[in-house]
Amino acid sequence: MYREQLKVLDCTIRDGGLINNHDFDIKFVREVYRAVSQSGVDYIELGYKNSKKLFSEKEYGPWKFCDDDVINQVVDGIESDAKVSVMVDIGRVDIADVKLAKDSPIDMVRVASYVKDIDKAIAMANDFHKKGYETTINIMAISRDQGLELTQALHQIEKECEAKAIYIVDSFGSLYQESTEDLVKQFKDILKTKEVGFHGHNNQQLAFGNTIEAIIHGANFLDATVYGIGRAAGNCPLELLVGFLKNPKFDIRPILELISKEFIPLRDKIEWGYIIPYAIAGMLNEHPKLAMALRKSEHKENYREFYESLTSTETE
Amino acid sequence: MYREQLKVLDCTIRDGGLINNHDFDIKFVREVYRAVSQSGVDYIELGYKNSKKLFSEKEYGPWKFCDDDVINQVVDGIESDAKVSVMVDIGRVDIADVKLAKDSPIDMVRVASYVKDIDKAIAMANDFHKKGYETTINIMAISRDQGLELTQALHQIEKECEAKAIYIVDSFGSLYQESTEDLVKQFKDILKTKEVGFHGHNNQQLAFGNTIEAIIHGANFLDATVYGIGRAAGNCPLELLVGFLKNPKFDIRPILELISKEFIPLRDKIEWGYIIPYAIAGMLNEHPKLAMALRKSEHKENYREFYESLTSTETE
Repeated sequence: MYREQLKVLDCTIRDGGLINNHDFDIKFVREVYRAVSQSGVDYIELGYKNSKKLFSEKEYGPWKFCDDDVINQVVDGIESDAKVSVMVDIGRVDIADVKLAKDSPIDMVRVASYVKDIDKAIAMANDFHKKGYETTINIMAISRDQGLELTQALHQIEKECEAKAIYIVDSFGSLYQESTEDLVKQFKDILKTKEVGFHGHNNQQLAFGNTIEAIIHGANFLDATVYGIGRAAGNCPLELLVGFLKNPKFDIRPILELISKEFIPLRDKIEWGYIIPYAIAGMLNEHPKLAMALRKSEHKENYREFYESLTSTETE
Repeated sequence: MYREQLKVLDCTIRDGGLINNHDFDIKFVREVYRAVSQSGVDYIELGYKNSKKLFSEKEYGPWKFCDDDVINQVVDGIESDAKVSVMVDIGRVDIADVKLAKDSPIDMVRVASYVKDIDKAIAMANDFHKKGYETTINIMAISRDQGLELTQALHQIEKECEAKAIYIVDSFGSLYQESTEDLVKQFKDILKTKEVGFHGHNNQQLAFGNTIEAIIHGANFLDATVYGIGRAAGNCPLELLVGFLKNPKFDIRPILELISKEFIPLRDKIEWGYIIPYAIAGMLNEHPKLAMALRKSEHKENYREFYESLTSTETE
């Protein structure tokens, strides 16, 4: 698959940071930044931009805050054509503290939002746009929030928002190819002036397959992470996506080397990937939080009971 | 997805046996047979029917031969509506030694064949059919063997063969959704009197996604294994397939319990699943044998060099 407009965004450090309180050391982050840059990926997302009034630096590592000077330490001396991205959550960032894009190493700000918060997301994206950043809105938990409310949100975005891409985020790892196709078509139908993005979760081993499906139906912004790292089941593996895309600008080899050197040892320390409780949460269209709690308990391998607990009673 | 004609075939012991010389102990095989039967799966494949003149019982476990009395030990006293299947390779079985189906615990014989051997496969399938067995032909390595030769083979099968289903076998884990769709449509177009089957390999985490794709386009015989066990990257995970299919006859819970009790400990002893050299073989449309050799060497994590060795020289 080759399409000039396709953009790959690596969110290894940002989504991977959800497993370890954003506490990767700077050497590791530089290794990721270097290898992913060499592989020809378009954007590299390093973390969240959160207010230090809301979160403690004692509790969270630097990628929870993404200060400009920390990002400068990452990129310093490394040749790269990739743009730097950060993510923001609604209500957790002091926009006044954020410099103009021209004075910052950050190129893009992605606003994560539920459908119900779309007014706030549009306002935030537009504020960052005014400061000179590229922006996206990433609509989370979309397997739950479909129907009229979503359609109205998309129309409002198309009318009012300056974001360049709007993402379908399969937070629960619950979409199949047909539901992915349906959503991409719906987004493209309404968002005439914007690109459509796709961010999969790998609960049911469908993150890569659904990303391919999204590409086939016209999504041009694609998220992936090295070796699929990310919260719970993780994400679409970057090495598979780069292996699939035929654009000659991509080179899988630096990613393969990075996995050997850094991610095989890391996987022994922190857990992500195809793990049955996350698969169960995905097939039941549930947030992974109960599965994550199970994995920290002494019942971590009691899959049948976990399934029965989710299906026999109301969970919310 | 609910379609009356859909049949699920569990090949846990057969394909899993390719990792350990078919040497599962009888207690383990009975646990698999019991749980998979309880889950409502239609066929359970226990191994290969090979001639003992060609393979030594000292070197291989009982599931390389699938003697009737061994299969009787598996099924004895376990309530089951599932039919028992075995696989045969061309030139490796003495058909004269095989009893009539009415005198055997085996219900189905599946003939594994490359396109080039399709004459022999048809003859074998017809011989087993005459003995009263249900039969299929499983066309291996199909990502390599497409084009006119495949089309002619399918026409010959439709004309001459009594097999009830013909399988697309993605031996190299190399198919994507579009290639899966194309093959299923081609098979259905020619094989008017037969069912189409799909057997995926999980090199690129697409075995489940491609199985869904095959279902969407009309394949009705679907292979899967518990926790995706199988040679190299393994197969479509049965728990995901059963979670996806909406036929009320299926029950995922016995499979979940089986994974907790038997497959989590087993995975610590033998290796299968998403492992980068198998992913590389899949994306390059190569047999996994070189990747399997790498995994047994001291360079097992040298992914970049492995990739370069496959792409810089001819490998066959």
